[in-house]
Amino acid sequence: MSTRRQGHAVWAAFLWPAGHHHAAWRLPDSRSDEVHSLDMYLEMARTAERGKLDVVFLGDLLAVWPLPWELLARTARAARFEPLTVLGAMAAVTERIGLVATASTSFNEPFTIARQFGSLDHMTGGRAGWNVVTSFTDDQARNYGLDKLPERKVRYAQAQEFIDVVKGLWDSYDDDAVLRDKANGQYFDPAKLHALDHDGDHYRVAGPLNMWRPPQGHPVVFQAGASDEGAAFAATNGEVLFTVAPSIERARQYYRKVKDMASDMGRDPDHIKVLASLNPVLGPTDAAAQERFDQLQSLLDGDVAAALAGHYFGVDLKQYPLDEPVPEIELVDSGHSMPRAHQQFMLNKARDEGLTMRQLVAGFCGLGLYPAGPESAADGFEEWFEAEACDGFVLQFSHLPEGLTDFVDLVVPILQQRGLLRTDYTGRTLRDHLGLPRPASRWAPAEVLR
Amino acid sequence: MSTRRQGHAVWAAFLWPAGHHHAAWRLPDSRSDEVHSLDMYLEMARTAERGKLDVVFLGDLLAVWPLPWELLARTARAARFEPLTVLGAMAAVTERIGLVATASTSFNEPFTIARQFGSLDHMTGGRAGWNVVTSFTDDQARNYGLDKLPERKVRYAQAQEFIDVVKGLWDSYDDDAVLRDKANGQYFDPAKLHALDHDGDHYRVAGPLNMWRPPQGHPVVFQAGASDEGAAFAATNGEVLFTVAPSIERARQYYRKVKDMASDMGRDPDHIKVLASLNPVLGPTDAAAQERFDQLQSLLDGDVAAALAGHYFGVDLKQYPLDEPVPEIELVDSGHSMPRAHQQFMLNKARDEGLTMRQLVAGFCGLGLYPAGPESAADGFEEWFEAEACDGFVLQFSHLPEGLTDFVDLVVPILQQRGLLRTDYTGRTLRDHLGLPRPASRWAPAEVLR
Repeated sequence: MSTRRQGHAVWAAFLWPAGHHHAAWRLPDSRSDEVHSLDMYLEMARTAERGKLDVVFLGDLLAVWPLPWELLARTARAARFEPLTVLGAMAAVTERIGLVATASTSFNEPFTIARQFGSLDHMTGGRAGWNVVTSFTDDQARNYGLDKLPERKVRYAQAQEFIDVVKGLWDSYDDDAVLRDKANGQYFDPAKLHALDHDGDHYRVAGPLNMWRPPQGHPVVFQAGASDEGAAFAATNGEVLFTVAPSIERARQYYRKVKDMASDMGRDPDHIKVLASLNPVLGPTDAAAQERFDQLQSLLDGDVAAALAGHYFGVDLKQYPLDEPVPEIELVDSGHSMPRAHQQFMLNKARDEGLTMRQLVAGFCGLGLYPAGPESAADGFEEWFEAEACDGFVLQFSHLPEGLTDFVDLVVPILQQRGLLRTDYTGRTLRDHLGLPRPASRWAPAEVLR
Repeated sequence: MSTRRQGHAVWAAFLWPAGHHHAAWRLPDSRSDEVHSLDMYLEMARTAERGKLDVVFLGDLLAVWPLPWELLARTARAARFEPLTVLGAMAAVTERIGLVATASTSFNEPFTIARQFGSLDHMTGGRAGWNVVTSFTDDQARNYGLDKLPERKVRYAQAQEFIDVVKGLWDSYDDDAVLRDKANGQYFDPAKLHALDHDGDHYRVAGPLNMWRPPQGHPVVFQAGASDEGAAFAATNGEVLFTVAPSIERARQYYRKVKDMASDMGRDPDHIKVLASLNPVLGPTDAAAQERFDQLQSLLDGDVAAALAGHYFGVDLKQYPLDEPVPEIELVDSGHSMPRAHQQFMLNKARDEGLTMRQLVAGFCGLGLYPAGPESAADGFEEWFEAEACDGFVLQFSHLPEGLTDFVDLVVPILQQRGLLRTDYTGRTLRDHLGLPRPASRWAPAEVLR
């Protein structure tokens, strides 16, 4: 293990319905077809905690997946739970692991979000995290009274104001406001309650929030921002960043860029943890993992794969024959697709390797998935961590719950042996796990803010 | 027991922070000062389930309590959890009891509410209920971008459209849409998915909801509507109604009125359960209960009581001396206070009984609370139930968690003996417990709708 890095990596388990691979639910020997089962979600939270991971993470989408229904009907992505309700349930059956969910700034109200994540932080003794996203598809807008989304710049301006309001609401009560003086009938000190009186471009919120300051001060702010606006927003606000880099080199560039941006803004770069998406399809050996990977790819529906890849590229891929080599494709920035640079990188790579269109889209649908036995998987994580391509990993398991269980049973012991993962929790809060400072209240005296 | 009524009464435990009595948190021997503890909420849910009650219910308010902060600081009502997160946690530790929370139609989005309660219904195997309220204070509006609330009529029109949209979203998938055909790669039947395409006066929602139809079809709709608009709305939409009647006679009138209104609308009056708020302060004997009641009243803060009573009356009561008899008070309908008829009734009663202003407001702050030993409490419930003043009860315990534990330990066995409360759950869903039919989807063939 390198002597340059202090401490271990950060580990987040990303729980997709059925798993990250689009054909996961079709595995004959997997339970991944049961998307809507609280018991399975609770089992996964317990498994992740058994593996001493930092975080269980639930993504979200405020619409069915953006596919024609004939194709949607061949995926397991047409339905999912509302994530905060699920995290509430996980709060009741876990003790230490961080609980994080996505909530969009585009279609929620700051007062509601501040309450939900504040509640979760209180309910868990300080283990809540909020993955702040700006929604990026019009089908979500149409479920919330709009024809289409505002432009990306407006969405990020909204998001910045939203996050500032939410943090202001969390600071409504000072940390030491509560007295509970039964004898004198004084529950809290009214001098330590503050109205927000926010009146901005996008939101007006009087406050105060009807909730004591959360145990973590502010629940940890997660972000996934890869566009230029996204990276700046992440460097300004994010404490944990999710990244999807197509190569270790790209990841190192992004890592450096974000840390430098944060430094330029006066933030301590150690207080921004960059998590790379590195997603081994596991098996007890390399060969068994390869077999599992091949099985998953063989179950993939070609039409579904092409449609999904096309959605992310912002291009109709049906015009290209599936079994001929990937041609030159002109990309357009629709503002609602994945970052242009990633798109171009993936296309170039496919053409360099002489892939067919079917291979490209199949690869896309298992984005970042690769077969690896336990030692190989650990080697991959260690290489990225040591190369300073990331501070840790967001794990998108090919199929759930088995992918997570395999990871905890097969890979975690190796990672612990190599010092990349804790052998037990040493702190109580998610900030403890991540080594992040507890933010002072905006109302705290200056010496505390120092 | 009467032979007229079939089956037992419905029992709902209303969990206020600290308890229903405003001085509850000051009881020296109570744990009711610990408002923000998940463990206490989970303990209460388990206790209610041990007592075989139908429902645990969490109210809500989207603001701190509407009091000057100097007075607010002397109450335990300045902070509370967000209820859906708490019900999520309760879902993980209970098996049978219904889980119900308030959510306002004034400051939420139908797509979000449909998902939250739909999730809870899936997570609990069909035990979710939604208490639909229209918010009625301007301080809540100011946390959601508005200066003040729309008028009552507009709020109810919004609420009607909101509830129709939510039900439409719950019907997005037919009950038998899911196939999970691994071999053929068909997860659901796309012919059994329906867009909503709602475009109304207040909401535009395309749908479909990204969730299978809830186990109950629709989670049970609760309501508390006592104004004229409220009663009509409740008779149209409500399946369980909360009422606060100042006397058994008033309760019987309301009961008859609501059942008749429902009949006139073509609904089966048995499918609307009216729950009265009857709230004994318990003790092992009548004398012990009286002692506890007196203790609570003696701990009440006179200024807080007057301010709260004034808030509900829509009148500044500070102008009247606290220790002189209640004078003639001219009431105004602000549109944001309790129903005029209730106000007038309470004032008349106070004047008839020669109460002082202090006694009136102290009584108000313990609205409906009265001391009763176990047998006396059971007698009261039986009298109201037999008189057809209600179909059951919403219990607002003076102090929590002890009030609920006392109820389950002291009163439940008597109620079970008298056939007023089940000795064990016989069904799985909240609709089973309540004897309510499972609504057919709006897309179901006509013969199913019959």
